[in-house]
Amino acid sequence: MKFYSQFKTEIRIIGLDDMSFQPKSQGRLGVIGVVFRGGYWLETVIRTEITIDGLDATENICSMISKLPNFRQLRLVMLNGIMFGGFNVVNIKQLHIISKLPVLSIIRKKPVFSSIRTGMKKLPSFEERWNALLAAGKIFETISRDNRSKIFFQKIGISDYDAKKIIRLTSTRSNMPEPVRIAHIIASGVGSI
Amino acid sequence: MKFYSQFKTEIRIIGLDDMSFQPKSQGRLGVIGVVFRGGYWLETVIRTEITIDGLDATENICSMISKLPNFRQLRLVMLNGIMFGGFNVVNIKQLHIISKLPVLSIIRKKPVFSSIRTGMKKLPSFEERWNALLAAGKIFETISRDNRSKIFFQKIGISDYDAKKIIRLTSTRSNMPEPVRIAHIIASGVGSI
Repeated sequence: MKFYSQFKTEIRIIGLDDMSFQPKSQGRLGVIGVVFRGGYWLETVIRTEITIDGLDATENICSMISKLPNFRQLRLVMLNGIMFGGFNVVNIKQLHIISKLPVLSIIRKKPVFSSIRTGMKKLPSFEERWNALLAAGKIFETISRDNRSKIFFQKIGISDYDAKKIIRLTSTRSNMPEPVRIAHIIASGVGSI
Repeated sequence: MKFYSQFKTEIRIIGLDDMSFQPKSQGRLGVIGVVFRGGYWLETVIRTEITIDGLDATENICSMISKLPNFRQLRLVMLNGIMFGGFNVVNIKQLHIISKLPVLSIIRKKPVFSSIRTGMKKLPSFEERWNALLAAGKIFETISRDNRSKIFFQKIGISDYDAKKIIRLTSTRSNMPEPVRIAHIIASGVGSI
C-alpha cells in the first residue's frame, strides 16, 4: 500500500488478454502480454498459449511473466478480466503469490455469476474453476477518466485507493488502462488473418 | 508534397514488420501491421501471412491494408525495411500505386547489395526480386531524434523533406519511428512462445 503512495508515472505494468475464438472451439489459444511504462510506452510484447476451457491459464501466465527480461522491473499485473480462453479462469490470488506482484483485473461489464456457474458446471473440475473465480474477491468500482462511466475491478496485493489511482494514471488514451487496451488490440489483431 | 506541409501530429500511419524465423526455415510467416496516430496512439493491429523467400509480400500486404476498417484515414505506409520473410521483397512502388499512399521504408543499417544479390541469385525469380529492390529507389539519410546517429530511408510518393519531418515527428519514444518500433516489438513477441 505504502509502496504505491509514491508510484512513478512510468511504472512498469504487464497487461494481459487472450485472443478471440469461435464459440465451441477446442484446442489452444494465444494469450498476449504487453509491458507498458505507465500509460505511455510499450516496451515488450510476449505470448503464451492456454487450452480453451482448460485449467492452465494461471500456470502458463505465471511462467510467461517470469521469463520476461524486464520481470524484475515489473510492479503490477493487469488483466482484461479473469476468464481467459472460455472458462480457463486465471486465479489472481495464485498469480499474486507466485509472481509476488499486485494483480488488478479490469472488468468492463459486471459479470453475471449465475450464467458463469451454469457454464462451468458443464465442464470437468467445476470446483477448481469456481474457487479461482471466488479467489478474485470483491468487485470494486471507480469512475472512468471522462467521468462518464463506471469501471469495475478486482485486485490482490494493492489497496483499492491505489488501484483506482493506477487505473486513472494509465487511462491515457481512453477510458481503459493502456496495458489492457493494447493487450486487447494486439490479441484481437494477431489472432485473425 | 504540399499534402504533408500541414500534416497533423495525429496523422494515421500503418507500420509493418515481419515475424522472426530460424535461418533455412520454409513455409509461412506472419507480418504485423499497426495503425498509429502520430507517434503516440496505437489504434489497430492486423496480421497477414507471407511465404518465406516467396514473392507474395507486396500483394498480401496490399490486401491486408485494404481490409483495415480505418483504411481511408491512413496517410502513410511505413515499413521496417523492404526485405520481408527473407528475400520476399516488398515492391514499395507497387504498394504505393495500389494503396495510393506514400510509402516510407526505414532502414537501420545500410544494406550490402552485393550479398543480397548473391542470396537472391540462389532463388527462383531473381529478376522480380532484384527489380523490387531497385524500385525502392535512392537511399536517403537523416539524423535521429537524439542527433547522435543516422537513420536511412527509402520513399515513394512523398518528398525527402516531408519524409524527414515524419520520421522526426513519430520518433516519440526512441530513435525509431513508433509505427515501425511497435510493429517490430509485436512481430517479435507474438511469433515466439
